Amino acid sequence: MIIVSVFYPNGPGSHFDMDYYLRSHMPMVQQRLGAALRRVTVEQGLAGGGSGEPPPFLAAGHLHFDSLEAFQKAFAPHAGPILADVPNYTSAQPVIQISEVKL
Amino acid sequence: MIIVSVFYPNGPGSHFDMDYYLRSHMPMVQQRLGAALRRVTVEQGLAGGGSGEPPPFLAAGHLHFDSLEAFQKAFAPHAGPILADVPNYTSAQPVIQISEVKL
Repeated sequence: MIIVSVFYPNGPGSHFDMDYYLRSHMPMVQQRLGAALRRVTVEQGLAGGGSGEPPPFLAAGHLHFDSLEAFQKAFAPHAGPILADVPNYTSAQPVIQISEVKL
Repeated sequence: MIIVSVFYPNGPGSHFDMDYYLRSHMPMVQQRLGAALRRVTVEQGLAGGGSGEPPPFLAAGHLHFDSLEAFQKAFAPHAGPILADVPNYTSAQPVIQISEVKL
């Protein structure tokens, strides 16, 4: 199992519209990627590690697939419309990480 | 539900011993935090978003708790030994994010 994580860094003036992300962006992603997308999880940043520290990320979305190949095959035909929707909910520049699930 | 995520940034010369992390560090964390720790997930970085890009993080561990208070109460008495074990598996400086589960 692999996870494609999209992190939205916190920073001066950056914003993230969680309502739009959950109600519009993620349903569109799920509809376009279909059954290859096994699971979606979404987190909102609350805090950093130190007392009073802000969270490094405003939010993160995690897309779970059986394999890297399954992700690439499902995502490639829809990359354009999915990426074009990003400015509708955030001013942050997304950081992308592809990971293998170990536990 | 909240998640305490510990990210280990990728960088020149940084290393991460996944074997030690899974076989020694995480079992120790689970034993110390007890039932308050609802779930643990671990990921190993494979790639970044662009073609041939390295992963931003070598690895990440995610500790799930019912609430921020449950985490703080469980973690505080064991912070010392848990943090003292970090140099045994990585040279990376951990980045900590506390998040609320939205989906």
